[in-house]
Amino acid sequence: MRITVINPNTSQHMTDLIGQSARGVALPGTVIDAVCPDMGPASIESHYDEALSVPGLLARIESAERAGAEGHVIACFGDPGLDAARELATGPVVGIAEAAMRVATSLGRSFSVVTTLRRTCGRAWDLAERYGVRGFCAGVHACEVPVLDVDGCPELIAATCRSVLERDGSDVLVLGCAGMTSLCAKLSAELGVPVVDGVRSATLLVQSLVLMGLRTGKHGEFAAPPPKPYAGPLHGFGRG
Amino acid sequence: MRITVINPNTSQHMTDLIGQSARGVALPGTVIDAVCPDMGPASIESHYDEALSVPGLLARIESAERAGAEGHVIACFGDPGLDAARELATGPVVGIAEAAMRVATSLGRSFSVVTTLRRTCGRAWDLAERYGVRGFCAGVHACEVPVLDVDGCPELIAATCRSVLERDGSDVLVLGCAGMTSLCAKLSAELGVPVVDGVRSATLLVQSLVLMGLRTGKHGEFAAPPPKPYAGPLHGFGRG
Amino acid sequence: MRITVINPNTSQHMTDLIGQSARGVALPGTVIDAVCPDMGPASIESHYDEALSVPGLLARIESAERAGAEGHVIACFGDPGLDAARELATGPVVGIAEAAMRVATSLGRSFSVVTTLRRTCGRAWDLAERYGVRGFCAGVHACEVPVLDVDGCPELIAATCRSVLERDGSDVLVLGCAGMTSLCAKLSAELGVPVVDGVRSATLLVQSLVLMGLRTGKHGEFAAPPPKPYAGPLHGFGRG
Amino acid sequence: MRITVINPNTSQHMTDLIGQSARGVALPGTVIDAVCPDMGPASIESHYDEALSVPGLLARIESAERAGAEGHVIACFGDPGLDAARELATGPVVGIAEAAMRVATSLGRSFSVVTTLRRTCGRAWDLAERYGVRGFCAGVHACEVPVLDVDGCPELIAATCRSVLERDGSDVLVLGCAGMTSLCAKLSAELGVPVVDGVRSATLLVQSLVLMGLRTGKHGEFAAPPPKPYAGPLHGFGRG
Amino acid sequence: MRITVINPNTSQHMTDLIGQSARGVALPGTVIDAVCPDMGPASIESHYDEALSVPGLLARIESAERAGAEGHVIACFGDPGLDAARELATGPVVGIAEAAMRVATSLGRSFSVVTTLRRTCGRAWDLAERYGVRGFCAGVHACEVPVLDVDGCPELIAATCRSVLERDGSDVLVLGCAGMTSLCAKLSAELGVPVVDGVRSATLLVQSLVLMGLRTGKHGEFAAPPPKPYAGPLHGFGRG
Amino acid sequence: MRITVINPNTSQHMTDLIGQSARGVALPGTVIDAVCPDMGPASIESHYDEALSVPGLLARIESAERAGAEGHVIACFGDPGLDAARELATGPVVGIAEAAMRVATSLGRSFSVVTTLRRTCGRAWDLAERYGVRGFCAGVHACEVPVLDVDGCPELIAATCRSVLERDGSDVLVLGCAGMTSLCAKLSAELGVPVVDGVRSATLLVQSLVLMGLRTGKHGEFAAPPPKPYAGPLHGFGRG
Repeated sequence: MRITVINPNTSQHMTDLIGQSARGVALPGTVIDAVCPDMGPASIESHYDEALSVPGLLARIESAERAGAEGHVIACFGDPGLDAARELATGPVVGIAEAAMRVATSLGRSFSVVTTLRRTCGRAWDLAERYGVRGFCAGVHACEVPVLDVDGCPELIAATCRSVLERDGSDVLVLGCAGMTSLCAKLSAELGVPVVDGVRSATLLVQSLVLMGLRTGKHGEFAAPPPKPYAGPLHGFGRG
Repeated sequence: MRITVINPNTSQHMTDLIGQSARGVALPGTVIDAVCPDMGPASIESHYDEALSVPGLLARIESAERAGAEGHVIACFGDPGLDAARELATGPVVGIAEAAMRVATSLGRSFSVVTTLRRTCGRAWDLAERYGVRGFCAGVHACEVPVLDVDGCPELIAATCRSVLERDGSDVLVLGCAGMTSLCAKLSAELGVPVVDGVRSATLLVQSLVLMGLRTGKHGEFAAPPPKPYAGPLHGFGRG
Repeated sequence: MRITVINPNTSQHMTDLIGQSARGVALPGTVIDAVCPDMGPASIESHYDEALSVPGLLARIESAERAGAEGHVIACFGDPGLDAARELATGPVVGIAEAAMRVATSLGRSFSVVTTLRRTCGRAWDLAERYGVRGFCAGVHACEVPVLDVDGCPELIAATCRSVLERDGSDVLVLGCAGMTSLCAKLSAELGVPVVDGVRSATLLVQSLVLMGLRTGKHGEFAAPPPKPYAGPLHGFGRG
Repeated sequence: MRITVINPNTSQHMTDLIGQSARGVALPGTVIDAVCPDMGPASIESHYDEALSVPGLLARIESAERAGAEGHVIACFGDPGLDAARELATGPVVGIAEAAMRVATSLGRSFSVVTTLRRTCGRAWDLAERYGVRGFCAGVHACEVPVLDVDGCPELIAATCRSVLERDGSDVLVLGCAGMTSLCAKLSAELGVPVVDGVRSATLLVQSLVLMGLRTGKHGEFAAPPPKPYAGPLHGFGRG
Repeated sequence: MRITVINPNTSQHMTDLIGQSARGVALPGTVIDAVCPDMGPASIESHYDEALSVPGLLARIESAERAGAEGHVIACFGDPGLDAARELATGPVVGIAEAAMRVATSLGRSFSVVTTLRRTCGRAWDLAERYGVRGFCAGVHACEVPVLDVDGCPELIAATCRSVLERDGSDVLVLGCAGMTSLCAKLSAELGVPVVDGVRSATLLVQSLVLMGLRTGKHGEFAAPPPKPYAGPLHGFGRG
Repeated sequence: MRITVINPNTSQHMTDLIGQSARGVALPGTVIDAVCPDMGPASIESHYDEALSVPGLLARIESAERAGAEGHVIACFGDPGLDAARELATGPVVGIAEAAMRVATSLGRSFSVVTTLRRTCGRAWDLAERYGVRGFCAGVHACEVPVLDVDGCPELIAATCRSVLERDGSDVLVLGCAGMTSLCAKLSAELGVPVVDGVRSATLLVQSLVLMGLRTGKHGEFAAPPPKPYAGPLHGFGRG
């Protein structure tokens, strides 16, 4: 089996960390292609960055499918471009916020999310609403560490997690950034509660879907996008 | 006052119709710049098209602000890129689905939306949820006319509207595509219920916000996006 | 165009302030009739006052329509009698809480309301629920200033607003009393966030509706009330 | 114990039927005062009628309390003036829609409401929302019989009930008009499902509250309304 | 009339207190059978205890119906086995959380629950959701007193109630454990807000239902459970 | 890794089919113990059956953990005893309705459930609500085949599925009974939409959780149930 794990920002270091985590939980026979786009923002810290990460992300999914990928993970906690990717791809597509938040609901009454910058908390709430888990989400909190610095700040992040768990009284902690994937084991050990990493959760979910032969339903909203003229630098996206 | 009305697809004909409607309701002193992007899809009929319309749309907003625009309308019923646009722009930004659905709630207990292709109905429901008007929305229905053919099919669209109003029993009809703006007067006359056009509604709402000196709150989630490196053909979007 | 702005309490001073604000944003050609009822409470500070303000308010709407008014604003933050007024009037009717809360949702993720007495906060929450904006409302707070003293207490109200914005972390402030309309500019300047005044918002919304030829849908729930015998001092309301 | 059952319309015949039902379930020692206002509409069939029934209803509650009443039923399915009445009265106040809908939720998964005119269905949905029972309400349906004709149309109403139960598949039928109280036994026998009458349900609930010594909480929103000047024919309502 | 009040735990002392409260509010002619199961946990302080209290509870309902009981109260604030009991019994069945929470909604805008152990708060929230009263519930709080010690700790419980009312600002207090029934009068006197006891509320509600001839609808989900083979010590439950 | 898959009814044939499906998707190294209780109903077709299946189910989980099981699947679409099992078990516990409904949300906008008897549909809706997926659930439908006959009726079930997909217009079909697990491949081939089987979905989810080292959070609501006296035939459940 071949699964693409797409880091929607253009940081190769973060892409490598993400690939490592995904490979660590995948089946022996599963090939994990950890990739990032060749166009778009170096990190995603605003709705603007998120919107502009999508064209490159979609291009990656298209080329991955041509290369035989059977399923796809979008490895950014804003789950950018998820609906568009589901139209485009033949195989299943899962976002890491989607996977992490859903896994968390099976581990207790409530979870708290710790993410990077405060300005991104709204997006996490929107996703919780979309995925129907708002009632399980006790809080979304920022540690105010920029995305690309996350894996170098384990202490600061651990401290935020501890105070968040105290305040929210929640059963489970959800890591609110793909860049935190490398901190998961350490945080689990320190915090004494289940710590859910979206990269691992989404990789396992996509792998499970492929194993069961399940893909996005293609008879309605998520049918392949109709080909049509595309102007300007996005010309190639017209799927004609 | 100067307001940009952005048709996120690249059809000049549709942009002209939209501009006409917006100018028809604007204050005498208000200049309406009706524009479309120079990159992206010819029409928006999928999540994929919508996602890929956003970079061109954001570029238009940025240049419009440099040219003195004080407010912006996103004239596609999927309200693409609304959050990103609110971060980017200094002036207020309103989507036509947002404006139309909200206006409709002041005219009765429930409204029905008539849109183009069935595959886009899900997006309309998502927006109704986001704007808090799901309880007012009695139905979202497609006439299965492609976006660029809409203004040439008044009879078919009127027939769909009539059957929808009968079935849903709703008080108000909302036009679910910017391209229907030119049909509004005719449909109002024929249907005998209030028919809400998002282009006019959003133009008037943005104009009202500017008149009251109201803009997007900029202290938190919608502060200007942080400048950063952007790779590939989107290089110029880095705001550095 | 002729628009009635009805202050449902019987204070002439407050009616004058409300009229000033409405005229300040209306189109040059729009005549604003700012009126108050000749029966009912001097100010509205309870469900009881609100209920008893409605007969006088409805009488004003009826006489205004006979005098050619094309639209109506109910200028009390409890939006008293809104459904009854929509049945009675031919033109559109908008409440100031309705207009202000909806405008606020286009300016950020969340708004806070500052109102007069604590006992009225519940009503504001009910309206937020009714209008579908509860998810945008971060808090409803009282400054414990009686309605008729509001325009004389700018400092106390500003102080409440500041502490509320700090506590709720919201993007937008909504003025929760028509009597605060005269403080809007001052508060905007001091608070540094968008401050939404319902009187201006509702006036502009009604004017926009009239411009677009939109009125309450009259085929169902909001058809004119059926004429029938009315007993006692309300005899004249029978519409026979 | 003394309980007022107030029919908010001015029909003495309907008031008598309501009184009969209430007395039929009350405790031997309980005195039921079935009354109607001396001002307001002959029947309540619109938001307008409902709003204008409230002053007379509140006057009745005030005089009933002076005469020693310990609790109050508002016997119209729109529950008009409920919040105002709770402020005004010392004893508990219950509406018949409130009582009936809540009783129905203890008898099955879902209930259907059969009411008089279609134009009043929206109000029933609003109340279902307010009381938190929307998820239990499978439908609100009209038999299109005017309020004052209801007790003379048992066959037509029974036929509507049968078709409603078939369509909604619900477990319980709720009578959506106080005037249907006299049909309850007959409908129960014919329909073979529990038929809930709000007049009896509310009378028993108020009696239970008084027995348990429970009254409206008076420390906040529902404290007695503050006395103040009232102008015009409502002068006497000022509570000064 | 004969009503069973079932304490689902096996404590005879608590059963006696519960019986006393129920008898204190029942009609002169009503016989209250206060019983507890002969199998299951001594007290219910976890989902596990709750699940295991159900077989004994159901056995009690079955034997009570054979002995002529016309209605049933489940006297534990978790309302264990309510759906199963409604299928099994011919007469109406009400849980004390259900009855108490619904009564509380008629007494103010919001109520707070004070219960025993913190680990049971989640269950109370689930029930508030199920009964549609989540919007009325301002908080669920634990006094950390074990169920069987409750009636011996009036001061500690009163202190928790006072601090809860202060914090939540709610209008009404709901006792979150059947064992608190004996403290109701004392707490009412001390706290100065309405204090709702589920044992009394449910007894009166069941009695009211029986008086009105209302029982669980039996045409669908709550029809008698189909008889079938049951293995092991639960053999007798097969209803064959 | 050792995972228990518990069929909560006492049918050995159905247990065998369930075991087969679970083994078909588990990792090579994973041991699947497919078991059923030695007490309780032969099949689960009512709330009553469901409640009485729980003691036997809990006993199985306890003995499985003593035998080294690291995770547990509850293989009945009512997810009976899930909360109690999460308290009791050290390893993660997942219900098949929970797993199937959540998987379905990643495959499209909406899913339909096809289950056995109509009387069980309400339970499925309750679970959809609990898991936050009600907005994704387009319908719950019965084929009116008893649980133990399900695997012998593929044509009837397929016919129900086809008509359900037509009516609901949903993207995904969810099998609403563990006994349908053996029909999944056949139905997938025939229906042309993704068909989600809870047995496989839950097995893979539990296996994923164990792989990631994730278990139920044990600091609050789901801590091990406190040991205490248990009377009667359930004596051994006291955990003393």
